[in-house]
Amino acid sequence: MTTETVTLDSFEFQCGETVPELTLAYETYGEFTGGNAVLVTHALTGSAHVARRRGRDGWQRGGRDGGDDADASGDDADGSASAPDTAGQARAWWGDVVGPGKAVDTTEYFVVCVNAPGSCYGSDGPATEKPAAARTDGDREGVTGSDDESGAVERWATEFPPVTVGDWTRTQRAVLDELGVGRLHAVVGGSVGGMNALDWAKRYPDDVDRVGAVATAPRLDAQGLAVEAVARRAITTDPAWNGGDYYRADEKPDDGLALARQLGHLQYLSKASMDDRFGRRAAGRNDARDRFPSDPAGDFFPYREVESYLDYNADSFTERFDANSYLYLTRAMDDYDLAAGYEDDAAALAAFQGELLAMSFTGDWHFTVEQAEGLAASARDADVPVAHHVVDSDHGHDAFLVEPEHVGPPLRDFLSDGVAGRAVSDTENDDGGDDRHAPVHTSLFS
Amino acid sequence: MTTETVTLDSFEFQCGETVPELTLAYETYGEFTGGNAVLVTHALTGSAHVARRRGRDGWQRGGRDGGDDADASGDDADGSASAPDTAGQARAWWGDVVGPGKAVDTTEYFVVCVNAPGSCYGSDGPATEKPAAARTDGDREGVTGSDDESGAVERWATEFPPVTVGDWTRTQRAVLDELGVGRLHAVVGGSVGGMNALDWAKRYPDDVDRVGAVATAPRLDAQGLAVEAVARRAITTDPAWNGGDYYRADEKPDDGLALARQLGHLQYLSKASMDDRFGRRAAGRNDARDRFPSDPAGDFFPYREVESYLDYNADSFTERFDANSYLYLTRAMDDYDLAAGYEDDAAALAAFQGELLAMSFTGDWHFTVEQAEGLAASARDADVPVAHHVVDSDHGHDAFLVEPEHVGPPLRDFLSDGVAGRAVSDTENDDGGDDRHAPVHTSLFS
Repeated sequence: MTTETVTLDSFEFQCGETVPELTLAYETYGEFTGGNAVLVTHALTGSAHVARRRGRDGWQRGGRDGGDDADASGDDADGSASAPDTAGQARAWWGDVVGPGKAVDTTEYFVVCVNAPGSCYGSDGPATEKPAAARTDGDREGVTGSDDESGAVERWATEFPPVTVGDWTRTQRAVLDELGVGRLHAVVGGSVGGMNALDWAKRYPDDVDRVGAVATAPRLDAQGLAVEAVARRAITTDPAWNGGDYYRADEKPDDGLALARQLGHLQYLSKASMDDRFGRRAAGRNDARDRFPSDPAGDFFPYREVESYLDYNADSFTERFDANSYLYLTRAMDDYDLAAGYEDDAAALAAFQGELLAMSFTGDWHFTVEQAEGLAASARDADVPVAHHVVDSDHGHDAFLVEPEHVGPPLRDFLSDGVAGRAVSDTENDDGGDDRHAPVHTSLFS
Repeated sequence: MTTETVTLDSFEFQCGETVPELTLAYETYGEFTGGNAVLVTHALTGSAHVARRRGRDGWQRGGRDGGDDADASGDDADGSASAPDTAGQARAWWGDVVGPGKAVDTTEYFVVCVNAPGSCYGSDGPATEKPAAARTDGDREGVTGSDDESGAVERWATEFPPVTVGDWTRTQRAVLDELGVGRLHAVVGGSVGGMNALDWAKRYPDDVDRVGAVATAPRLDAQGLAVEAVARRAITTDPAWNGGDYYRADEKPDDGLALARQLGHLQYLSKASMDDRFGRRAAGRNDARDRFPSDPAGDFFPYREVESYLDYNADSFTERFDANSYLYLTRAMDDYDLAAGYEDDAAALAAFQGELLAMSFTGDWHFTVEQAEGLAASARDADVPVAHHVVDSDHGHDAFLVEPEHVGPPLRDFLSDGVAGRAVSDTENDDGGDDRHAPVHTSLFS
């Protein structure tokens, strides 16, 4: 199937604002047999298109086949889809992890992925048309992409209600209700999608058996908050942002969005992986050099591969992503705190009767191994069966997307056997030796 | 004394361009007795004002007394002076390390510090007036802050020649010549100032006995290059930058410079120190919230302490620093490569007959312990007596400025006794135990 949509009536966001209708885009893979539903939650700039699908011309090629070399393993650093519009998304953001015969096997599981509200891949967000009902009774102050004489559509712009990860969870619940799915076998997601997965364990503890929280944390730390804040400032200081009202303008805040994306990229790659890939080499071609203004003194110095890479990717990102959505989604990520409303993380997880897999990556400085260990410790405190599986990797945060060979096996075995799964390791059972972070075939219960 | 200047005739930069005159600002402390000269080299946005000085009203207070709490230990993260103009610089950027009775004791040593060309603290750079001779025979293409009918001064803007760290070294040599200082007892500097210190060992190996390279590396890695590149893009995409020609405009590229500064700050602080200082707390006061544009949806979320800190510091930075200078100085830093012109780092250091102290900090991810260890290994290969002194610290790159109690003792003993200095430790002599990075009283020769 391709991307479907469902439109909810009168959804109330956590902020207290209500919209008269809310359209959500989702994709499903496999057949629902009653107990085999797996919700996959996407990362910051991801879409509902998690797995490859059989097109009219046979299997579409996904993964990292579509880009050039510079694009090869980093473009989907945060789970981005690669096409400028929803319909044309050629790339499945987790196509080597989810699909027929993959770790999350769509011949076995019924996989559902919903685009988060606030995003721009089919679900409602700042870039979508404001419903007629909202136009008449909308009384919030702020800018709108309001109609002018040309009769152009009126967009929500920044009058779209602020969204939270909790809103994502609640809209996913609503979509699953529409699909007739009650209890989930599992929720699995990475990065802020991992926060979204954790939120299920807290918000709907009786609705899910297994939660796979990959490359994530119960909340961002100060450094993470700071990076996101600077990225948003790059957008909002772009004069073309214009308070969020740019949909009918000739110019979009592409420079600001490009800078924000470059900042994100810095966060997704590790020091080691950047040095390995780019070093200090000058770029072989200067094609992308004109993406940003320079000056005579600047042109004296080489245009480096790492710059070319960042510029190329920033450019392609601005073609497919909405700047206001970037503001909305990063704010949701910053805001998320598993412990919110509870004494602490353990208390937030206490009602969850299922099992938890926390997976982290040694080279990830966006979401660290230490943060995942803290999550695992809280789960242990709450008597939630948990395994903290650490993957040795130089790939930084990107690892959860670009190392399916390491992400897949523990995820597959966790879905089938929980934390007792054969390929699932746990820090508590590590021997503390040099290879303590290498996956070992052990678990809490073996 | 206060800041002095010397004007060189017809200086040729490494790029091949010649200026008809070049003014350099410098400060000296203590008395020159022939063999006691120590050149201190400043970091990216530092000035010649390295130490406190006795003003007419007694000793000026320097260090971290002038700012509010948010400013307390991070504002001079890269060695910035704090005042908007050179004359008014109230803060000595290394006032707890250099001064009477300090580690670099100005009652013993004759300390010289020169503002780098390209900067904006008294030495010539993009923001300074173009000499008359350059106005008539200047034939480089590019923008200038050229005269209009108002008779305003003509600034160099981006027609100022691109500068390199090698140019900094060469202008320092010229200033020392003017002062009658031949051979230096030592050159000491941190961050890009440490690269500058290393450049002395390579460029003028016979002119210096001891080189103290603090929180630095032989060259930036790909991640460092990327951060600087994104920072420059923040400036050059600010429409007020206008190709570098903004000196007579009503608006300066303050938004871009503020973003660049915030990116720098992210690099100077460690994950641990940011979490300790700010966590996820909401700011007690929202004063700085209006520094950057927001929108109704954004205002739903808290303004956090870490944002307030970054905004406050970015604001004060734009008041005192020139955006073009930021472009020039970061490019010089990116460009520096100790091995340039040589087979490798060891070959570049081979002619140096003095001793080298490399000092690094465990929490520094801008310039890492590993990079400093690589430098030390190259020095060992070149038979240069070297100690790599590692300081255990959570302060990130900032540590070299905010931990005088850890930076001072090894520096003091290195100046007096070289790598055999009592407080100088070396990684080669570490025992490899849990405290292997704690300073130990040992050296290569004990």
